[in-house]
Amino acid sequence: MSTIKRISLIGAGRVAHHLGTELHKHGAEIVSVYGRDPKESEELAQKLGTNQSLSLDIKINADLILIAVSDDAVAEVARGLPKGTDALVVHTSGAVPMTDLPDHLRRGVFYPLQSFSYDKQVRWENVPFCIEAENDEDVNALGELAERISRKVHLLSSEQRKALHLAAVFANNFSNLMFEYAEEILEKAEIDRSILHPLIVETSNKVLMQPAAKAQTGPAKRGDTDTIKAHRLLMEEGSSLREVYDLLTAEIYKRSDHEDEL
Amino acid sequence: MSTIKRISLIGAGRVAHHLGTELHKHGAEIVSVYGRDPKESEELAQKLGTNQSLSLDIKINADLILIAVSDDAVAEVARGLPKGTDALVVHTSGAVPMTDLPDHLRRGVFYPLQSFSYDKQVRWENVPFCIEAENDEDVNALGELAERISRKVHLLSSEQRKALHLAAVFANNFSNLMFEYAEEILEKAEIDRSILHPLIVETSNKVLMQPAAKAQTGPAKRGDTDTIKAHRLLMEEGSSLREVYDLLTAEIYKRSDHEDEL
Repeated sequence: MSTIKRISLIGAGRVAHHLGTELHKHGAEIVSVYGRDPKESEELAQKLGTNQSLSLDIKINADLILIAVSDDAVAEVARGLPKGTDALVVHTSGAVPMTDLPDHLRRGVFYPLQSFSYDKQVRWENVPFCIEAENDEDVNALGELAERISRKVHLLSSEQRKALHLAAVFANNFSNLMFEYAEEILEKAEIDRSILHPLIVETSNKVLMQPAAKAQTGPAKRGDTDTIKAHRLLMEEGSSLREVYDLLTAEIYKRSDHEDEL
Repeated sequence: MSTIKRISLIGAGRVAHHLGTELHKHGAEIVSVYGRDPKESEELAQKLGTNQSLSLDIKINADLILIAVSDDAVAEVARGLPKGTDALVVHTSGAVPMTDLPDHLRRGVFYPLQSFSYDKQVRWENVPFCIEAENDEDVNALGELAERISRKVHLLSSEQRKALHLAAVFANNFSNLMFEYAEEILEKAEIDRSILHPLIVETSNKVLMQPAAKAQTGPAKRGDTDTIKAHRLLMEEGSSLREVYDLLTAEIYKRSDHEDEL
């Protein structure tokens, strides 16, 4: 199996920053950093002990070209690579199919399923890596690279990864929106938002131990229509808060096998 | 300050079970257990080293009568207490106002903000207790009782507690519903649900460190309309999954200050 030793990094944002740093830590040589913003790329290049590259269209001597840019820029960036590139070229996006990379390239995907912040350290050993490539050798090389930093490596097709990305929007973005609503309700009632933290931790802990459908509780699950009525009075008619409450309450109610209609 | 030593427990369900056990552990004497289901109450009474009471309408020699029954049964149960009761009478419900207890009683509330399962141990020291009573002496007595088992005791009015209960529905029930959707999407794509667990843990960890509005990420937050379009194609038109996706995506998009309309 060919081992990936030299990596050329394209992108200098959050994912490039976190992933580049971690790969460097585990012995990969970052041979160049290319990013849209020269200041950002220079900073990252220095951090990774390399130089920034001022153009995409130069011969890159690397085993892997890692495209860690925003979803909508992946295809364009890949088209900008020099025609004779023989390195394996992967992107790090959950939503972009592998085939969005030009088919004259040796293509693959190296997608870490995590929500990255600049200021928060990533516990890499728990980050699931979803890899994909066009041949077994490249799959193995990407798998070996991922295993250097994480215990969780998954081989997923582009179709599966797309579904996973959608699932992650529900599990992360939408549940976070629920926390936003909760915090807004508390603020209006002059209660510190930290009062909900133990419940939030418990909510996520529960779902690690059993399917979410089994973990459900609350008034809609119980069919407690008096409490639902009282809740609705607390929210302005026509507000998006109440619209969301009504839709999600109806959905939980429907799933809970009550005799009466809500 | 009068200390609560003897407690009469009404209810033998999840909350009564967990809370009764914990109070007993911290030195409170449970003098009786009354529940609708004689078998359940007998079991709990035995566990708490006491006898079950076969009627509500007997003189109870206790400092505190703890009503831990379903929200819609609180008022009725309280009305069934003997007229001369001089114990402090509290319920454990987030949604029920203190004044739903008859006004000839010494009334209060003792609400642990947590989602209880039968089979999962509660880490009581982190459970916020929301207390309320009609006079300072009873507030202090309830506060002292709560502090025996938790580090987090809050004095909240019935109005505040009602808002908190609604916030908890968003933070717990609705975010759990988001996890359900995510698991359903994964199941359809034949991906094990555990792949999302690290992201779920990260989502809740993030919101402990910053307001949820600051923690938000994802396509709607970024204004990545291509990804949103691709996601929508994965969900059946008219399905409740897509209805929820559209509503919550629009809401995050609206909050994120993009130039174009979604």
